[in-house]
Amino acid sequence: MTQSNPALSARAAGPAPRLGIIGGGQLAKMTAAAAAPFGCEVVVMERQADFPAQSVDTQALIGDWDNPQELLKLGPLVDVVTLENEFVSTVALAALVKAGHKLWPAVRTLELVQDKLQQKRVFAGAGLPTARFADAPTQQAVLAFGFPAVLKKRLHSYDGKGNATVRDEAELEAAWRKLDGDQHPLYVEAFCPFERELAIIITRGQNGEAVQYPVVETINKDHICHIVKAPAMVPDAVATQVRDVAGRAVSAVDGVGSFGLEFFLLSDGRVLLNEIAPRVHNTGHYTIEACVCSQFENHVRAVLGWPLGSPALVAPAAAMVNLLGFDDGAGRPDGLAEALQIPGAHVHVYGKAQSRRGRKMGHVTALGQNVEDAAAIAQRAAGCMQFGGKR
Amino acid sequence: MTQSNPALSARAAGPAPRLGIIGGGQLAKMTAAAAAPFGCEVVVMERQADFPAQSVDTQALIGDWDNPQELLKLGPLVDVVTLENEFVSTVALAALVKAGHKLWPAVRTLELVQDKLQQKRVFAGAGLPTARFADAPTQQAVLAFGFPAVLKKRLHSYDGKGNATVRDEAELEAAWRKLDGDQHPLYVEAFCPFERELAIIITRGQNGEAVQYPVVETINKDHICHIVKAPAMVPDAVATQVRDVAGRAVSAVDGVGSFGLEFFLLSDGRVLLNEIAPRVHNTGHYTIEACVCSQFENHVRAVLGWPLGSPALVAPAAAMVNLLGFDDGAGRPDGLAEALQIPGAHVHVYGKAQSRRGRKMGHVTALGQNVEDAAAIAQRAAGCMQFGGKR
Repeated sequence: MTQSNPALSARAAGPAPRLGIIGGGQLAKMTAAAAAPFGCEVVVMERQADFPAQSVDTQALIGDWDNPQELLKLGPLVDVVTLENEFVSTVALAALVKAGHKLWPAVRTLELVQDKLQQKRVFAGAGLPTARFADAPTQQAVLAFGFPAVLKKRLHSYDGKGNATVRDEAELEAAWRKLDGDQHPLYVEAFCPFERELAIIITRGQNGEAVQYPVVETINKDHICHIVKAPAMVPDAVATQVRDVAGRAVSAVDGVGSFGLEFFLLSDGRVLLNEIAPRVHNTGHYTIEACVCSQFENHVRAVLGWPLGSPALVAPAAAMVNLLGFDDGAGRPDGLAEALQIPGAHVHVYGKAQSRRGRKMGHVTALGQNVEDAAAIAQRAAGCMQFGGKR
Repeated sequence: MTQSNPALSARAAGPAPRLGIIGGGQLAKMTAAAAAPFGCEVVVMERQADFPAQSVDTQALIGDWDNPQELLKLGPLVDVVTLENEFVSTVALAALVKAGHKLWPAVRTLELVQDKLQQKRVFAGAGLPTARFADAPTQQAVLAFGFPAVLKKRLHSYDGKGNATVRDEAELEAAWRKLDGDQHPLYVEAFCPFERELAIIITRGQNGEAVQYPVVETINKDHICHIVKAPAMVPDAVATQVRDVAGRAVSAVDGVGSFGLEFFLLSDGRVLLNEIAPRVHNTGHYTIEACVCSQFENHVRAVLGWPLGSPALVAPAAAMVNLLGFDDGAGRPDGLAEALQIPGAHVHVYGKAQSRRGRKMGHVTALGQNVEDAAAIAQRAAGCMQFGGKR
């Protein structure tokens, strides 16, 4: 629906539980689509009207979720609240829980991961392999840490926004200004000359039981996920490390729901845990068509307290290619009909009103006998489409 | 959304075309869910609030679609109108088209199939095999036709409602009263001692190109579809007959969109075309998980004028079991969590507010290496669930 409904009603004994989602982007849209076959109604809270999930939600609540008084309006409308955005104020979320409403993942989980320095400390405390890291309250602290390093914002960073590689004092000075280190808390990590990037989705239930999706390879461009190949073509020993570390990481933050975890694979075969997102994740979009039960369906099952479904692939391999905005412009893509002519291409258009350069506007998934065949199909279809002008 | 939105707005140049669906039941719900990944918004027209598709539509228009003045309100809101219910007044639909709005399937297609006697005449005119049939304006006409026969309503019959088998004059007299033959036009068919019932979904585009889904076997209980097994375990010659006749039947009515066609398989290996539904069909629900592109997605593609997707199975076999209401009661099922514990069971709850005896409340699909394995999974999950009291 396109606007907040004046008739927004308290939950009734409907045919299934009502799910509330904080945030109305593509992650909320795909979660709501996965909830619908269970008979669930979804109420989406967004800051303003006209958002991707509007096409599949039941009701919208427009408001500022970081304001406890506004977030508290969501509670009585639904049975369980979840989120598509991990940067919601934990003060507001705690007020929601204190008022007796159910929230998954829990406030404590979000407190452990929102601040990426705190997240790294949790991983280190659990004995999980990460790049060496340190707090960076001052430039002096970075100098003491040593070069080459990556300076990162502790809060509100995603898709590589808020990161800068620094190799000397001059680069540090420039990066500190760019990231506004005097205003925003930063931390520093050792520069990690990884060979490849790997990722995995884990869904963990309220009883602590978890399912692990395949280990995938992610190929980024400009710090934004470009292609995901499932499964990753890595030795068993590497996949086993990823599975072990990822499972321990989700347990360490007592996660409930679907989580995306990103790893660096080093040339010596070791893996380092890069970060965890306490939500459904771009590296798991391929699961909609490629797995028995998608990351979105399993997230719904987990937060509603239902048994989890199988994360197994339904084909030998799959690939997903993101569709990014080429430039500012309308949200309607050119070339959709051409893309739909590619056999086996599953096209997703998020329905964002406006394209912006680099904005995630949609994605294409394809299955295949191997990841290269699947990737070729997905890339061919993605190559037909343009958002915001010609590329 | 749960209520007609006072802010119902005319279509804008949104990220994708807007689709209007006449009727808001489970067929509209699954069609709207298939339209969402393309960025489409869906406006559903229903007679009253609280219907299954409300959870995934963008807006609702409440009104009587058989009234041209009310149906005409739908046109300006959307780019293309389709329907989930073939019994909409063709007078109202013709008014919509005359006002310049796009409608698929076309009015002419509906005129050819709404009246089942007319439908049979079209099939006969196209040289397609059907049971022998005749108009039955009077009981005398049935006596002249001969016994055993099946007396059927020409209009508004589905799921075996409006049919009666008659073997002698006494049964004819009783059936004529039951079907109220003096008020409702009836026709008669030769009783057909079929061995099995087969079905197929065909989606046909605006350019006449069509895709054919696998030939399936349907097992009915009390004239309502109970299990669908895909593919049907029949000799190639049988499947070829079904494919040939079905393709010619959809062309004969100049169909655009997804169509469900039902057949009788006789003991001598011949098939007879029983009927055609000018819409997505219960015998094609398995395609959501079991095919590259579902009957719903292909219906959306067809009516929007986009290329059709592959109807191929993604697994060797699939089965679907309907979930019928056991009795009057709430629409919330007992046993959902138990059903979700069955690995590989894809559970669909339509979200109807009330259960009624025999009402279609949901379905379960499973994939497998063969149809019997798939059917066992689906039946096991379906056996966990109850709508409207214990069975």
